[in-house]
Amino acid sequence: MKVDGKPYRTIWLNDDGISLRVIDQTLLPHRFEIVEWRTLEDVAEGIRKMVVRGAPLIGASAGYGVALGMLGDPSDKAFQRAYELLFASRPTAVNLRWALDRMREALLPLRPKDRAAAAFMVAKKICDEDVANCSAIGEHGRSLIEQAWNKTGRSRPVNLLTHCNAGWLATVDWGTALAPIYKAFDAGIPVHVWVDETRPRNQGASLTAWELGHHGVPHTVIVDNAGGYLMQHRQVDLCIVGSDRTTAGGDVCNKIGTYLKALAARENQVPFYVALPLSTIDWTIDDGIKSIPIESRSPEEVAVISGRTKEGAVCEVRLTPEGSAALNYAFDVTPRHLITALITEYGSFQTIKEEMAKLRLKAEQADERRH
Amino acid sequence: MKVDGKPYRTIWLNDDGISLRVIDQTLLPHRFEIVEWRTLEDVAEGIRKMVVRGAPLIGASAGYGVALGMLGDPSDKAFQRAYELLFASRPTAVNLRWALDRMREALLPLRPKDRAAAAFMVAKKICDEDVANCSAIGEHGRSLIEQAWNKTGRSRPVNLLTHCNAGWLATVDWGTALAPIYKAFDAGIPVHVWVDETRPRNQGASLTAWELGHHGVPHTVIVDNAGGYLMQHRQVDLCIVGSDRTTAGGDVCNKIGTYLKALAARENQVPFYVALPLSTIDWTIDDGIKSIPIESRSPEEVAVISGRTKEGAVCEVRLTPEGSAALNYAFDVTPRHLITALITEYGSFQTIKEEMAKLRLKAEQADERRH
Repeated sequence: MKVDGKPYRTIWLNDDGISLRVIDQTLLPHRFEIVEWRTLEDVAEGIRKMVVRGAPLIGASAGYGVALGMLGDPSDKAFQRAYELLFASRPTAVNLRWALDRMREALLPLRPKDRAAAAFMVAKKICDEDVANCSAIGEHGRSLIEQAWNKTGRSRPVNLLTHCNAGWLATVDWGTALAPIYKAFDAGIPVHVWVDETRPRNQGASLTAWELGHHGVPHTVIVDNAGGYLMQHRQVDLCIVGSDRTTAGGDVCNKIGTYLKALAARENQVPFYVALPLSTIDWTIDDGIKSIPIESRSPEEVAVISGRTKEGAVCEVRLTPEGSAALNYAFDVTPRHLITALITEYGSFQTIKEEMAKLRLKAEQADERRH
Repeated sequence: MKVDGKPYRTIWLNDDGISLRVIDQTLLPHRFEIVEWRTLEDVAEGIRKMVVRGAPLIGASAGYGVALGMLGDPSDKAFQRAYELLFASRPTAVNLRWALDRMREALLPLRPKDRAAAAFMVAKKICDEDVANCSAIGEHGRSLIEQAWNKTGRSRPVNLLTHCNAGWLATVDWGTALAPIYKAFDAGIPVHVWVDETRPRNQGASLTAWELGHHGVPHTVIVDNAGGYLMQHRQVDLCIVGSDRTTAGGDVCNKIGTYLKALAARENQVPFYVALPLSTIDWTIDDGIKSIPIESRSPEEVAVISGRTKEGAVCEVRLTPEGSAALNYAFDVTPRHLITALITEYGSFQTIKEEMAKLRLKAEQADERRH
């Protein structure tokens, strides 16, 4: 998508073919800076520090991380080390494992000397597929927004609510939850987006607001507490969020607070959609609440916040009193019964047994095509 | 309650008998400072800028605001001006009106020259009654916490969750939602409090954490997004929040985000209590969602946050990108069916017709006793 009129992806290979550039998302929305990655360790550190974040982009980054690792040492042992280092960098994102498994499948059968070149090719393919998937998610979701618009008699903008950032910054391009919004906006459907600021890391206020603004999409930042009121007062036509990990049964693990919005949506009969590529589905688990371990991040992310001073510097300030503990679970699980449908690259599927079985068939067919 | 070992109220008369002191709550938790009020305008400004906040404390402050006004000009016209100025300073707090009506009732029948002295007496009475009411709320709520403790076989601390600040800082002393917690703690019942930070103004992280910490009550600050996860995972035994305005039917208007926690509590069978003095009940309305106008405060409260820098200065930083709008509804309404019971100075009452009728009778009897 565009930044200051210039099209970007979130990650791209330099002309030298052996180093990468990514947008440093920790500095947004106050500074737009590009970071260079030259080593496997750069990538693992970048994922850990959330220079890049968002399940699809983490997967794409991990692919290139392996490729950079193979440049230095293409041995089986080095591959295993790269796999483990990258896998540990963000435990919840299921398509981190998906991307790494895909790299392993492609690389280990090859002679070590052929691995680096192949790794760059597979990583590029992961990126291009992600763009195609997100674009397809966008098209499928656009039609749902259009239906909502038709329901108003095309009389007013469609009000959407989103949590966290599942926009193009979370993927290679287009985004997941925001792709339908971009597609609708580009098709001339009037939309307005309520952007949950998404404490503690404020990805909504920092990233979603920034990318919607740069694309010209009307939006309003709200605190995470406000969505219930807005839904109660019919100011939200539909919710669309992303997913870090989805179970075979249709439970969705996403940024902490997603569950609360889903409860408010159900209570107020507001459709609650989750947009996701099939690669975020973990077919090995069914019950997300029981089976998904929730990452507990540093309490400092709750206690300290970063923003821009009047003078323009980016600065951290402490919010809590000395001596008060804080706790920072990063995700929660929204059970399937609160979800209207999953919007995937293969269309929309309800989170009921028969539909999830259909979706699984699609995933298996896609896997077969790749082999 | 105590600050650095010294007992305080949130508002008190100076020895001169014609000026007041209050704790400046806008500077907490980073600085503990006392502010002096000498005029009606000081009080109105203090309420508007949230130097004092919390429905009961606003009512008490307004009483003294009228008294300071009467010192300068005790005429009917001046009384009416004082009433209107104070009433406009915080539109949602129903016991602002309650306190002002009580001052009117007491003062207008008197000769103007007697009004100032009487006003100080009534204002003091409002304060002392508030302390007694909060203490009674605390006792009634303590028994509920004790029951929860017994339910665990007295095997572990009782985990409570609270939103915003309905502690002693929101009242003259003791608090409403926190009074039961202080009473339980003082009685040796082990408790642990999950403190919602409560965006946008962070009254939880700033005030609730600060006052619990000074009293020695174990607590952990969490983002507003986290409560759903905690309840889903049985880490909350009961929720207790305050109320800015309660309807005759039992709907509760409280800090934005309260409604989302009530939804999560219902979904996970966690008892959800609202602690309030009868003075916050507006018997003239029934349906809170339809009838209570919600204060929309400055979007800057969402876009800009204040905290302490590493160097110790209190400083504001901007969170949102330039050009992104923000919206800031300050309250939401939790409908009665999500509330387990109201904890009042007369005991606990379910939010069902028969119980609310009993509560109304208590309120009428109390009114009669006062006349």
